[in-house]
Amino acid sequence: MRVRNKPWAEGYIAEHREIVPEAPEQYKGKWRDIFGNREPLNIEIGTGKGQFIIGMAKLYPRQNFIGIERETSVIVSAVQKLAEEPLENVKLLNVNADQLSDYFAEGEVDNIYLNFSDPWPKKRHEKRRLTYRTFLADYEKVLKLGGKICFKTDNQGLFEYSLESFSKYGMVLENISLDLHRSDMKNNVRTEYEEKFSAMGHRIYRCEAYFKTLR
Amino acid sequence: MRVRNKPWAEGYIAEHREIVPEAPEQYKGKWRDIFGNREPLNIEIGTGKGQFIIGMAKLYPRQNFIGIERETSVIVSAVQKLAEEPLENVKLLNVNADQLSDYFAEGEVDNIYLNFSDPWPKKRHEKRRLTYRTFLADYEKVLKLGGKICFKTDNQGLFEYSLESFSKYGMVLENISLDLHRSDMKNNVRTEYEEKFSAMGHRIYRCEAYFKTLR
Repeated sequence: MRVRNKPWAEGYIAEHREIVPEAPEQYKGKWRDIFGNREPLNIEIGTGKGQFIIGMAKLYPRQNFIGIERETSVIVSAVQKLAEEPLENVKLLNVNADQLSDYFAEGEVDNIYLNFSDPWPKKRHEKRRLTYRTFLADYEKVLKLGGKICFKTDNQGLFEYSLESFSKYGMVLENISLDLHRSDMKNNVRTEYEEKFSAMGHRIYRCEAYFKTLR
Repeated sequence: MRVRNKPWAEGYIAEHREIVPEAPEQYKGKWRDIFGNREPLNIEIGTGKGQFIIGMAKLYPRQNFIGIERETSVIVSAVQKLAEEPLENVKLLNVNADQLSDYFAEGEVDNIYLNFSDPWPKKRHEKRRLTYRTFLADYEKVLKLGGKICFKTDNQGLFEYSLESFSKYGMVLENISLDLHRSDMKNNVRTEYEEKFSAMGHRIYRCEAYFKTLR
């Protein structure tokens, strides 16, 4: 994403610590205490401007949602939306997702959402793709047994790569859709990118991937 | 496939036993003796009129190919092609593919090709799909360690199903293409169906699936 710099973003976020908790590593293993319930915890990596995580939080008001986005000038739009229309079941983290274990305890997370991640099409950038095996190992640590990754993209190459990467890691694939918007999937919450690329005629690809319970 | 009955087909096949060996179960475990070499053995399940298996046999003249097709009135077209232009490295079996172990010994086969198999879209017909788990178990028996299934279809639902079925069986996916004719795959031999459906604007899907060497 080309990001327009917003010098005021950091200050704005600092004034909304009820939405973007300061030093979130202190809540590792304690997120359900923060939310005040024992319901499922869902995280999205690369939350962007927040349309997906906010839509999900409204659709599943009893569950808990954490959106992670490293770009301060992008996540601030999500913070603004939540400042205008507060939702108790959403928090945002303005951190880099490559150290998930700093923020979540083993098995603390129920589901991980990856939506329209950067495809990094060049082979030499494979390690940066969010479905590369080192990332999968990070996800496995924080996901509960039976937890899943829900992956959505319009990028054909990234989807092909990701199916193979999940499979080679020993994960099990479910609910694959090669044309999501012409499928019978209910309750699909669209991201900003999804609306944009779908309007351009791109197919949207989706799958779920589970770590096997016995490894 | 709608099959035009050809009452002469059985007689024609009976006159071409150099192409369609009689009582093929007698060659179980001995196919390389029949071909007279130790090169890889590739089989295609649902060979139809033979364009793929004949194309592959010409492209890889040192390897061995067996095409399996239960429809006598269909396979006879492949027999005719091979009668006109004999190829030493192709045999055809006019049998039902649901008893592969009757015709091949454990580990005798290097690669299995499934091309444009009947999608059986109704859920109650799932067990008939050639990528249903009971078929995968049959393939596993006759495939060597490291052997693979190469699967190609224009049917989106069957492809989605098959990726999931391979994955749930514990197989590893490789070389997935969600638009084969716009991919960089070399040496793709097209089937009759593939030419027809591609001309109609359908995408062609392809993947390879391996049984893990340690199970």
